[in-house]
Amino acid sequence: MRQTDLFTKTRKTVPKDEIAKNAQLLIKGGFVHKELAGVYSYLPLGLRVLEKIEQIIREEMNAIGGQEILMSTLQNRELWKWTNRWDDREVSVWLKTKVADGSEVGLGWTHEEPLTNIMLNHVHSYQDLPKLIYQIQWKFRNEERARSGVLRGREFLMKDLYSFASSQNEHDRLYEIVAKSYANIFNLLGIGKMTYRTFASGGAFSKYSHEFQCLSEAGEDTIFINNKRKIAINKEVMTKSVLSNLGVTRKELIEKKAIEVGNIFNLGTRYSDALGLKYVTRDGKAEPVIMGCYGIGPTRLMGTIAEVLSDDKGLVWPESVAPFKVHLIELKNGLGKKLYDKLNRAGIEVLYDDRDSTAGEKFNDADLIGIPWRFVVSAKTNGKVECKKRDEKTFELTTYDKAIRKLL
Amino acid sequence: MRQTDLFTKTRKTVPKDEIAKNAQLLIKGGFVHKELAGVYSYLPLGLRVLEKIEQIIREEMNAIGGQEILMSTLQNRELWKWTNRWDDREVSVWLKTKVADGSEVGLGWTHEEPLTNIMLNHVHSYQDLPKLIYQIQWKFRNEERARSGVLRGREFLMKDLYSFASSQNEHDRLYEIVAKSYANIFNLLGIGKMTYRTFASGGAFSKYSHEFQCLSEAGEDTIFINNKRKIAINKEVMTKSVLSNLGVTRKELIEKKAIEVGNIFNLGTRYSDALGLKYVTRDGKAEPVIMGCYGIGPTRLMGTIAEVLSDDKGLVWPESVAPFKVHLIELKNGLGKKLYDKLNRAGIEVLYDDRDSTAGEKFNDADLIGIPWRFVVSAKTNGKVECKKRDEKTFELTTYDKAIRKLL
Repeated sequence: MRQTDLFTKTRKTVPKDEIAKNAQLLIKGGFVHKELAGVYSYLPLGLRVLEKIEQIIREEMNAIGGQEILMSTLQNRELWKWTNRWDDREVSVWLKTKVADGSEVGLGWTHEEPLTNIMLNHVHSYQDLPKLIYQIQWKFRNEERARSGVLRGREFLMKDLYSFASSQNEHDRLYEIVAKSYANIFNLLGIGKMTYRTFASGGAFSKYSHEFQCLSEAGEDTIFINNKRKIAINKEVMTKSVLSNLGVTRKELIEKKAIEVGNIFNLGTRYSDALGLKYVTRDGKAEPVIMGCYGIGPTRLMGTIAEVLSDDKGLVWPESVAPFKVHLIELKNGLGKKLYDKLNRAGIEVLYDDRDSTAGEKFNDADLIGIPWRFVVSAKTNGKVECKKRDEKTFELTTYDKAIRKLL
Repeated sequence: MRQTDLFTKTRKTVPKDEIAKNAQLLIKGGFVHKELAGVYSYLPLGLRVLEKIEQIIREEMNAIGGQEILMSTLQNRELWKWTNRWDDREVSVWLKTKVADGSEVGLGWTHEEPLTNIMLNHVHSYQDLPKLIYQIQWKFRNEERARSGVLRGREFLMKDLYSFASSQNEHDRLYEIVAKSYANIFNLLGIGKMTYRTFASGGAFSKYSHEFQCLSEAGEDTIFINNKRKIAINKEVMTKSVLSNLGVTRKELIEKKAIEVGNIFNLGTRYSDALGLKYVTRDGKAEPVIMGCYGIGPTRLMGTIAEVLSDDKGLVWPESVAPFKVHLIELKNGLGKKLYDKLNRAGIEVLYDDRDSTAGEKFNDADLIGIPWRFVVSAKTNGKVECKKRDEKTFELTTYDKAIRKLL
């Protein structure tokens, strides 16, 4: 894409109330626009990143047999009364609104109730289980504080997977399959090494759960890690009994701040009991379905990558989610056209800086936008191209064909 | 995909309040689940159709230079006060909700205001124009009546494109380019022949606009058409002066019911004036940007196709949006496996009915689900396969390889 066609420009300033590094960088680079505290619109560069993150997650979910659906945002309160999660005293993050007939509906902040209800039509026998069902859908939460940029939104994208099993064994097997696929996802996103499967509180439904925590000073969580043994424990649950269960002492652990980039929960039969989701066993008995839920937030992941993989010049996208693979910069009008055409023919995603700007402006913008490869053609490169990776300092002057081969 | 893996089942019944044919068929086939009046969740088959519709629209929008973004659902009321569209007395379809700090936000029912505001950061000079920017985003409208299934939702998907031009000529050129691309879209979706570009009311901003109306008894609109001259006029604007402008008499027109599947509007400078979106001309003067907006609803299109291309046995999807290309039915356990593998290797999307059901059940379900091709293997087909199109009555018995070649 030609940068003169791209409608966004980089910006020098951000809204005064925007104090989070991730959002500051994303706004300056033209990836997002801040609408309200915790509410962002995604501009072309940002949407490209977000869709790549989504696609990585989608492919992993499909690979483990997940079936994709899309549940509504507007929520029928009757379903939530069955589980005692409609009342604002029970759930403080609801956003609710009145519809024309005077009744109140909620905006989906999670989707256990509607999915369990949908499954009433489709699960009858043990032969209908197990099932893994997921969606990638925007969630709405009435956050008291929304000061962490796209890390904690009032409106944020979530991949939520739900498992339905006929026995605890079957559930446990699914739980581990999903946990493994989550580890794959964080590896593919370039944050695998700094992301820990973390022992955490189980919330209302079971004693413990697991979070995936990515080390970052911007994180809201405190975790204790042991790198050698790959053990991580959320501060919230770090009691003597947990330490002894995991066979680790407090001294062997170091304290770190981290961003929760995923979580996996055992739901047991809480929702199937409340909504009556049963299946008939081989022996003809009716038993409640055992459920699990598994979340990853693509928008939060985008913010996490912006936080942990950026430097003082700007964003540094991993190739897997970068809006383009190469940023082609010409320092003389029209000089980049030939290489641009070659890159397009090779099927390589390229942003072509054909603007009438100074070299300094172009280099600064390229660093801010953070595309993995920078290719520069100028009068000095003399028919060749100067290639540089965003996160390296060394340049290489090479022919067009060799440069393209680097990217294939 | 194996039908025993697919978590949805066909259903014999629909909720009592569901009176629209499109939703009845989509619910029975397992494409959607009704959450509330005018609010549906999309199950695997339905999501596949919806995403194919989206992708056809997306490719057409990209082909004319549209840049995709995704604006937030939660809306900052301040922007809408500038255009006098926040007050419920001005706009009756708002759904509004209170956030933690006590302030009110709205749920996006259209997006002129936020996009015009975003453009303030990115449009400065005539060189920044023209631009075409679109999103495919869910909209929320507080409809008094929501009885038309997915044709008129309280929550529905919309592709909304906005044009930004520096002169009326430039705007008029863009308007015609979009109109042409809309005609392509309806052709690709299999409803081109019954869809008319229709002269309609311009709403608050300009005297006239154009709608794309698809003939159907389920439609809420009444239009008058002349097939020979490809003229269509919405009843709302059919005055003597309009007839004379179009050079047609009332006698030459026939009255039809139709579903509005798209609309294109000239917005003039209403939003750019209200929000101060100006550009500097070649001569250094500041002028307001001229805008247009162009809508197509993918969920409404799905409902329209369900209405107009179904028969008394069920849905009849055009190949371009069908959830699968072929429905492979085996009438003896395991007999379809070989052809299923062959189809998968050929990259053909296939739903494989490997269920332990009767032939009658399988054929009825296949007709209800409406996949374009039905392939049957049984003891009788004797190593060959019986091929039939959903909308034809004739069968053909042929070899696996020849059957596959039909689909490539």
